[in-house]
Amino acid sequence: MNPYGKRADLIVHEREPFNAETGRAALGEGPLTATDAFYVRGHGRVPEIDSAAWRLRVHGLVERELDLSLTTLRDTFPERDEIATLQCAGNRRAGLMAVCDIPGEAPWGPGATGTARWTGIALADVLAAAGPLDEGTHVGFAGADVCLEVEPAESFGGSIPLDKACRPEVLLAWAMNGKPLAPVHGAPVRVVVPGYIGARSIKWLERIEVRSTPWPGHFQHVAYRLLPEDGTPGPGAGMPLGLVALNADVLAPADGETLAAGLVEVRGYAFAGGERHVSRVDVSLDGGASWSPAELLEDLGTWAWRQWRITVDLAPGEHEILVRAWDSSAATQPEDEAALWNPKGYVNNARPRVRIRAAP
Amino acid sequence: MNPYGKRADLIVHEREPFNAETGRAALGEGPLTATDAFYVRGHGRVPEIDSAAWRLRVHGLVERELDLSLTTLRDTFPERDEIATLQCAGNRRAGLMAVCDIPGEAPWGPGATGTARWTGIALADVLAAAGPLDEGTHVGFAGADVCLEVEPAESFGGSIPLDKACRPEVLLAWAMNGKPLAPVHGAPVRVVVPGYIGARSIKWLERIEVRSTPWPGHFQHVAYRLLPEDGTPGPGAGMPLGLVALNADVLAPADGETLAAGLVEVRGYAFAGGERHVSRVDVSLDGGASWSPAELLEDLGTWAWRQWRITVDLAPGEHEILVRAWDSSAATQPEDEAALWNPKGYVNNARPRVRIRAAP
Repeated sequence: MNPYGKRADLIVHEREPFNAETGRAALGEGPLTATDAFYVRGHGRVPEIDSAAWRLRVHGLVERELDLSLTTLRDTFPERDEIATLQCAGNRRAGLMAVCDIPGEAPWGPGATGTARWTGIALADVLAAAGPLDEGTHVGFAGADVCLEVEPAESFGGSIPLDKACRPEVLLAWAMNGKPLAPVHGAPVRVVVPGYIGARSIKWLERIEVRSTPWPGHFQHVAYRLLPEDGTPGPGAGMPLGLVALNADVLAPADGETLAAGLVEVRGYAFAGGERHVSRVDVSLDGGASWSPAELLEDLGTWAWRQWRITVDLAPGEHEILVRAWDSSAATQPEDEAALWNPKGYVNNARPRVRIRAAP
Repeated sequence: MNPYGKRADLIVHEREPFNAETGRAALGEGPLTATDAFYVRGHGRVPEIDSAAWRLRVHGLVERELDLSLTTLRDTFPERDEIATLQCAGNRRAGLMAVCDIPGEAPWGPGATGTARWTGIALADVLAAAGPLDEGTHVGFAGADVCLEVEPAESFGGSIPLDKACRPEVLLAWAMNGKPLAPVHGAPVRVVVPGYIGARSIKWLERIEVRSTPWPGHFQHVAYRLLPEDGTPGPGAGMPLGLVALNADVLAPADGETLAAGLVEVRGYAFAGGERHVSRVDVSLDGGASWSPAELLEDLGTWAWRQWRITVDLAPGEHEILVRAWDSSAATQPEDEAALWNPKGYVNNARPRVRIRAAP
């Protein structure tokens, strides 16, 4: 058993702050990820919050400042739920670290992602009650966690454009997969921003600020930005991340596995990010010279990944399984993982490859 | 001079129906494309429409059918304009045809795209007047052109999701770059769907139909779909196109050009499609081993391409200029043009390459 009630098959990258990813087998158990197997990306100690005393402050460029209790949130606004995939911008970083090491960053495999049903209220409803002013173009969130990696320490935060914040899928959530949100996932209330990098789904929410500029804190103005390969992290350096880029990975068989020749089922996930959906996943056994379409499994809606599977017939010997997903703009993934290397190791969305051996 | 008042430097692929693309030099003249240089993709003879007699019918899953004159449109709804890039799904097909021929399709270079200021009214306002019913989830458009390539002949048509149709950027336009819409561009009224393939921006609009399913006509149910490399066009075969995929091309210098060694300005465009914007363009002179960021030129807003430039220092000899654009999800273009080949030659969004010689 791992801390915070997490299953033993989580791959723990750091104990404090707690950082752990879901194993490939657990990701493949079904289209929704079990809460006790769901990944955790933390930047500070999990705060202990008394939900009876908890207050949410809404301020900044608004007509009316609000100070809301959990009871008021529940009683005032209509409950909503959404099935949404969360994905860390560092998902699949291990592939980039194999190209060139990235000291100080966790070597996430494909399990810094997961899909859950989130229940709460629409952020849009709370914003409407506060009344954003015309100059308000961004909505910022601050959590209660204290992140000691920044000097001076600051709470984790980030913002999204007001336009996105007013869409109905963005939630202030208090439940995950039908159960009250666990402390490690942001209790009593977290933000869930479907289609965006996990770093915008602020946990342990304390404060919502309507602003005229993006969030100035470390985790948006310095970190979670895509630098050129020779860039140096710094305030405003690089491209701010936001929407998740089209990505995919293989969940089974595992890289390096030996299995019996003959019919083999290959399974994985693909996630389009933003408002896009996965429209096709192809698998190649000849290095990309020819491709076969995989079967797309259960469609959980606009904000969720799509799991897929295909049965291939493997002759005895060595094989490489190469995968490419396509989104609803008919864009597909880049080939070359090495060319995606960047100093913080974000957004590795290269086509996944798995090398296996089929025994006679 | 070309037909329809088009400049002599258009590259004409077909006279009737008229199909012609903008030359690279004309595309590079500025961020907006001159109307007399703007590309034309036609599937039928340009219809001659008396705008005084023209009517727009709005029907299908609506509370109130409408039958609107041009005067009524102008007098009833607030005028809007948008700067938007249109791009044909077949843009850059020539690159795919160099891999393997695609008989019966035009060999479009990078000029089946252009950016203009469009003036008219929001489709959303007309839809609100008609009152879409709850079952209405798609909005279809039919033009007055007769497309003889289909048996039996049909008018060009297509649909977009109702959600997109209700966003303010989707226009019924009667002016282009500040002048009344020319017959060849769809006069008296055309649809402009920013972020979508040009085939959804129906010209010579006659009819708007609110539907519960996507458009069943040839140009959405058979054509303008991405087939697997070994697929065969047919009703419902392949992935329907809609959003434009991230793309880019080099406008200068030209492929095969010889120029003086030393400082050379490289210019081009990039377009992110959908609601995304271009966040970075990189140029490599060493086959992708290292990249330099290009300068992004004038930002014309969410719905427009981004032109870019970079000055490189070329030693005498042969050089290959390789380009990759990034969108706001931090996704970049695929490398391998050959692997994007498909039977109808759509969506060639591989990284552009230009080979040049620098003379001592």
